[in-house]
Amino acid sequence: MAWNKVAVVGGGLIKFGELFEQSYEQMASGAFDAAVASVDKGFDPQLVEAAFVATQRGTLWGQEGIGGNTVPTAIGLAGIPCTRVENACPSGSDAFRVGAMAVASGVHDVVLVIGVEKMRDKSGDEGLLARAAAGHPVYTRGETAPVLFAPFATRHMHEFGTTREMLASVAVKNHFNGARNPNAHFKNEITIEDALKSAPVCHPLHLLDCCPQTDGAAAVLLVNPDRVAEFTDDPVFVAGFGVATDHPYLHEKNTFTGLRATTMAAERAYKMAGVEPGQIDCAEVHDCFTITEILDIEDLGFVEKGKGGVASLEGETAITGRIPVNTSGGLLAKGHPIGATGVAQIVECWLQLRGQAEERQAEIRNGFALQHNVGGRGSGVSVINILTTNR
Amino acid sequence: MAWNKVAVVGGGLIKFGELFEQSYEQMASGAFDAAVASVDKGFDPQLVEAAFVATQRGTLWGQEGIGGNTVPTAIGLAGIPCTRVENACPSGSDAFRVGAMAVASGVHDVVLVIGVEKMRDKSGDEGLLARAAAGHPVYTRGETAPVLFAPFATRHMHEFGTTREMLASVAVKNHFNGARNPNAHFKNEITIEDALKSAPVCHPLHLLDCCPQTDGAAAVLLVNPDRVAEFTDDPVFVAGFGVATDHPYLHEKNTFTGLRATTMAAERAYKMAGVEPGQIDCAEVHDCFTITEILDIEDLGFVEKGKGGVASLEGETAITGRIPVNTSGGLLAKGHPIGATGVAQIVECWLQLRGQAEERQAEIRNGFALQHNVGGRGSGVSVINILTTNR
Repeated sequence: MAWNKVAVVGGGLIKFGELFEQSYEQMASGAFDAAVASVDKGFDPQLVEAAFVATQRGTLWGQEGIGGNTVPTAIGLAGIPCTRVENACPSGSDAFRVGAMAVASGVHDVVLVIGVEKMRDKSGDEGLLARAAAGHPVYTRGETAPVLFAPFATRHMHEFGTTREMLASVAVKNHFNGARNPNAHFKNEITIEDALKSAPVCHPLHLLDCCPQTDGAAAVLLVNPDRVAEFTDDPVFVAGFGVATDHPYLHEKNTFTGLRATTMAAERAYKMAGVEPGQIDCAEVHDCFTITEILDIEDLGFVEKGKGGVASLEGETAITGRIPVNTSGGLLAKGHPIGATGVAQIVECWLQLRGQAEERQAEIRNGFALQHNVGGRGSGVSVINILTTNR
Repeated sequence: MAWNKVAVVGGGLIKFGELFEQSYEQMASGAFDAAVASVDKGFDPQLVEAAFVATQRGTLWGQEGIGGNTVPTAIGLAGIPCTRVENACPSGSDAFRVGAMAVASGVHDVVLVIGVEKMRDKSGDEGLLARAAAGHPVYTRGETAPVLFAPFATRHMHEFGTTREMLASVAVKNHFNGARNPNAHFKNEITIEDALKSAPVCHPLHLLDCCPQTDGAAAVLLVNPDRVAEFTDDPVFVAGFGVATDHPYLHEKNTFTGLRATTMAAERAYKMAGVEPGQIDCAEVHDCFTITEILDIEDLGFVEKGKGGVASLEGETAITGRIPVNTSGGLLAKGHPIGATGVAQIVECWLQLRGQAEERQAEIRNGFALQHNVGGRGSGVSVINILTTNR
């Protein structure tokens, strides 16, 4: 049985990419306009009673980190309550959960969840320098994101015989899907050979195993289900969610073949939604690196532990496969504007469940889609939301 | 009628001050322990189902800005969902509101709201430099916080005859109160003469018109009211809250004699709680500067617009006055560790309503206490929570 207290009636995003020509506020405005335009029966922006803004690196990337109170003016809604939600890479998915709880609490009938991240205005060096200057206990030692995930890849290879080809197959699939998504950052198809031959970053991860740094924004509109008929005859509901934290540092991990935060979050989300992994029709999962998607599909219960690489290579996660994963192109091809990522994944799930994903459309049988992010220094947090067409 | 869906059963803080010897995690842990110890019938920490962490300047002040997923491990609760909420100076009060909605949504029965801020490890210069480097559109032009509030003071003086003595009387009262609060940063009483003679910062604000930069942490425990008897026979309830945003920049303001975000937030909070300003027994309001408290007590409806200075000088807001304001010592004396501030104000309201404020105890007649913060570049957001003993 779905939790069934909150409906999604609109969702949209701007085209992700290097958006030097757009300010943070312009990006937010574009995503909000796209969400408003997506509502079947029309939507008066003034109906929004409260907003939750996901931005992860406000200060670091050239904004102030106080999006909560600057976004309303930018999108024409000065005055409304607006709160910034941050939870590392799952910031957008957690803002969605918080927005859903705000509706379910009975305090607000119509809530906007918007994710915005500007990542390209600062060079990587400046970003890294800023982190180092802030006394970051991991980055100051050179442990950037690829370094944090590479040990999971080498261990997965060692334990389960996963190969670089299997990793590459994830990048190939997600670029194939991204090429069919008008809002993706990268729209070029690649081959396994391309991925294998791309520049090494941190063994065994090469350039095409890594997601890009992307500017982007995405927005969704949540409403009290009692009012859903004002907006659409084809709603999607929040079936459930799950969040879990884990010890944040790598040296505290007890395994490198899975992400414990995801396993725990999945158990909670499936329980709340009252579904099994096998009932999920399609999923957007956190593929910051190819290995991450392989870990995800195992930790989410879509494939057996250790079989994620083989399943990817054999096409089980393709749009036409048993469990389509990252039909949007994922972080690898659509891009990863941190705060916007989770919200954009929700938009993809919403489109899929409504049969509006065009060339990327998966087969919807049970009416459930799952959205997932993992993040933090060493995968210290995982957030999962499950959407459904079943009221 | 109170909103009545959420109860506060515990609250505590660490002694605010310059806490070079404590890490961010240690401060969080100390506040959590204090909240747990405060619960009348005892509290098993493992009952916490989810947490919301308020930290405003994670990156800037030497942490990573991902408190959401590092705090659980630090306080012995690795695994629980934990989300960072940020909304400029009202971050703590907004985290409280979000935590209350999480309980009211039915998703969680027991929620921790914790505010933590480390502000003294970096020098002001480094802080300012970090802001400048991040391309901040206001601070890069030298407009630090005193500069943002001084025009409100000069305009209030011009329109209403408010004097520097009236401003100083706010600092004198709050230091008097702070000297009676074991957890205050400053515990020295001062005279009007001291305040008038203190070093000029930005006319008409002198040093003692300004709150300090403080390290601190505070925590409260929220529960489903159906379970309140497990924890206490003397609960306090969330009666209502209100949040409003305003155009963030000073050049967009249409008045300098009040803060519009506060007026709007107050209207919403009073409506939700079903009370009038005259029914509030005591209040913790945002006195980042003496002029701010004067604006607050007017904008919150405690005194007529323009009379805030006179009311302060005449003792109307003293512990023994008509409407006791900032019995804790306020930001001016207790200190202003940004994310912790709103949560600590909630703790003070909770103590007052339960008659546990000792030397600082106000007379509680109607059973309502109000907590308020305003913040952002140019007072772009205001958050108000109203607590009550009335079920």
